[in-house]
Amino acid sequence: MAGKVTVTEVGPRDGLQLVAQLMPTDVKVRWIQGLFDAGLRDIEVGSFVSPRLVPQMADTAAIVAEALRIDGLRVYGLAANLKGAMAAYEAGVHVMVIPLSVSDRHSRANVNKGTLEHIEAIRDIIEWVRAQPRAVRMDVVAASAFGCSISGAVPVADVVRATRALDGAGADRIVLADTVGYAHPALVRDTVRAVQDAVGARLSKLHLHDTMGLGLANALAGLQEGIREFDGCMGGLGGCPFAPGASGNIVTDDLVFMLESMGYATGVDLPALLKVRQAMRAHLPDGALRGGVAAAGIPATYAPAGA
Amino acid sequence: MAGKVTVTEVGPRDGLQLVAQLMPTDVKVRWIQGLFDAGLRDIEVGSFVSPRLVPQMADTAAIVAEALRIDGLRVYGLAANLKGAMAAYEAGVHVMVIPLSVSDRHSRANVNKGTLEHIEAIRDIIEWVRAQPRAVRMDVVAASAFGCSISGAVPVADVVRATRALDGAGADRIVLADTVGYAHPALVRDTVRAVQDAVGARLSKLHLHDTMGLGLANALAGLQEGIREFDGCMGGLGGCPFAPGASGNIVTDDLVFMLESMGYATGVDLPALLKVRQAMRAHLPDGALRGGVAAAGIPATYAPAGA
Repeated sequence: MAGKVTVTEVGPRDGLQLVAQLMPTDVKVRWIQGLFDAGLRDIEVGSFVSPRLVPQMADTAAIVAEALRIDGLRVYGLAANLKGAMAAYEAGVHVMVIPLSVSDRHSRANVNKGTLEHIEAIRDIIEWVRAQPRAVRMDVVAASAFGCSISGAVPVADVVRATRALDGAGADRIVLADTVGYAHPALVRDTVRAVQDAVGARLSKLHLHDTMGLGLANALAGLQEGIREFDGCMGGLGGCPFAPGASGNIVTDDLVFMLESMGYATGVDLPALLKVRQAMRAHLPDGALRGGVAAAGIPATYAPAGA
Repeated sequence: MAGKVTVTEVGPRDGLQLVAQLMPTDVKVRWIQGLFDAGLRDIEVGSFVSPRLVPQMADTAAIVAEALRIDGLRVYGLAANLKGAMAAYEAGVHVMVIPLSVSDRHSRANVNKGTLEHIEAIRDIIEWVRAQPRAVRMDVVAASAFGCSISGAVPVADVVRATRALDGAGADRIVLADTVGYAHPALVRDTVRAVQDAVGARLSKLHLHDTMGLGLANALAGLQEGIREFDGCMGGLGGCPFAPGASGNIVTDDLVFMLESMGYATGVDLPALLKVRQAMRAHLPDGALRGGVAAAGIPATYAPAGA
C-alpha cells in the first residue's frame, strides 16, 4: 500500500447547488447514507446560504441533523459568512467550510470585499466559532487558486500571501480550489510547493475541476507533492456556471479508481459507489452524471489497495 | 520552454474505423489538410485492411496519395499483415504502423498467433520492407500493454519480453498502447521504466485511451518518465468496441492544452484545431466528439509554450 488518501464527497453540496430541480430531503439523506455505506467518511452535505439565493440548500439544517445520526461520518457544511457560520454551528456540523476567493477582483465581485479584507471577516468567523463550547474544525477553501474567470491568471505569490494570512487568521486547514478548472499539472506542482513552503501541512486538500479534462492529471500532480486529501463529486455532478455544457468537479468514481489502482487506500468500495450513483440517477437531470468507470464498467484488472 | 512533444493525430484511422457512416474521401482529405494547417505534422491517415472488414478504410490508398501532396506532413498508415504492408508501401506511406498484441490470448483471438509467433511474422514484414528501394519507418504498436479485455492484467515482464523481441526483429520504434484503457499512472510509470531498461529510446510513444477518465493522468505519468510522443484523437473520436458508450482515445485538443500549458511545445495551434473539430462535426455522428476544452472554451489564461 502506498498510503492512505481521504476523499471528501461534495456532491450533496457543490454538485447539487447548480441543479434547479429540488431534491427532496429524504432522497438527499438516502444518498448520504449510501455514500457512507460505500465507505466515504467525509461528506459535505449542504450549504448555509439564503434559501432565496439557493433554494436547493434550504433544508441543509435538516440534512445535517440526519447526517449526524450516521455514526463515524464527518459532516461538513459550507458557510459563507458569520450568519451562515452561526447556523452551521447551531446545526452541529463537524467541519465548517468557508470559501474565500484568492482573486481580488473575483472576491470583490462576489462578496464586495477584497481578498485580504475578506480574510479579516473570516478571522472574525473563526474567532466566533472558537468562543463556542463545541469544537468545530474550520477549513478555508482558497478558491480561484489556479486562475479566475474574471482576472485570468492568479499569481502564485497571491495564493501564498492569502494562505499565509489564512494561517494567521486561525484556519485549521486550507484547501486550494481550481474553481474554474484552469489548472494544469505544472501549475498545481508549483502552487502546492509554494504554499507548502509558506504554511506547511496546513495545506491539506485540493478541490479540482475537470473543465478542461485535466482533473485527474492535476490530482496526480498534487498527489506527487504529498497532498493526501481530495474533494470529489459522485458522477462529476455539478457543472461550471460560466460555461454551459462544460464539466465540473472531478468524478469521485474515477478518482477512487485511480487512487486505489495506484495503491492508495481510500476506504471506498467502488462497486458500492457505482450502485449509489445508479440509484441516484432517477433523482437527477438526464446526463448530469459523467464518468469513465461508470460508462465502461470496472475492469477485471481492478485491484484496490484497500482490499 | 520545457521541451518539445510530438502529438500524432490518429483520428482519420483509429477514430474513424469504428464509425459506421462512411466519410467521403474528399472530406477525409479536407480534415487531414485542416489538421496539418493547425500544426499537426504526424497523422495516421488510414489502415490497409480488407475493405470488407472495415469499409470505412477502403479508400486509404487514395487518402495516402492526397496526404503525400501536403509538404511537411509525415503520413502514417496501419498495416496488420504482409499484404497490408505491401499495399502501404505501394501507396507511399512514410511510416508504417504494425499492431501486435502483448497479451498472448488476445493475440491468438485476433490473428490466430501467439505474441512471440506474431513477432516473427512482423520480422518478415520488416525484412520485406527493408528490401524495398524506398526507406519506410517501421513503428510497432504493442497493444494491450497495460491490460487486456480477455486475459485481464498483463505482467510487465510480458511487455518487456515482447518489446525486446520487437527490438530484435528490427522495429524502428515501439509504441505502448493502452488499448482498452485499463492503465493507471503507477502502471504507466512501472511499465515505461521497465521497457526503457530493456530497449532504451526504441520506446518512443504512448497510445492512451480515456476509458476510465485517466487518459491525461496516464499521459502525465509517461511525460514524467521522458516519453515525448503521444497519439491523440481529435475530439476523442473513437469509442471502445468492448463497452458501448465508453470513451476511447485521449482527446488531442485537451492533450495539447495540457502539454502547451506545462511548457511543452507541440507546434499545434489550439484555436485552429478547435475550428477543424467544429468543421468536422457535421460529418460525424452526433455526440462523437468529446473534450473539455472544446466544451468550456480555451481559458483566457492559456499561454502556449510554442507561442
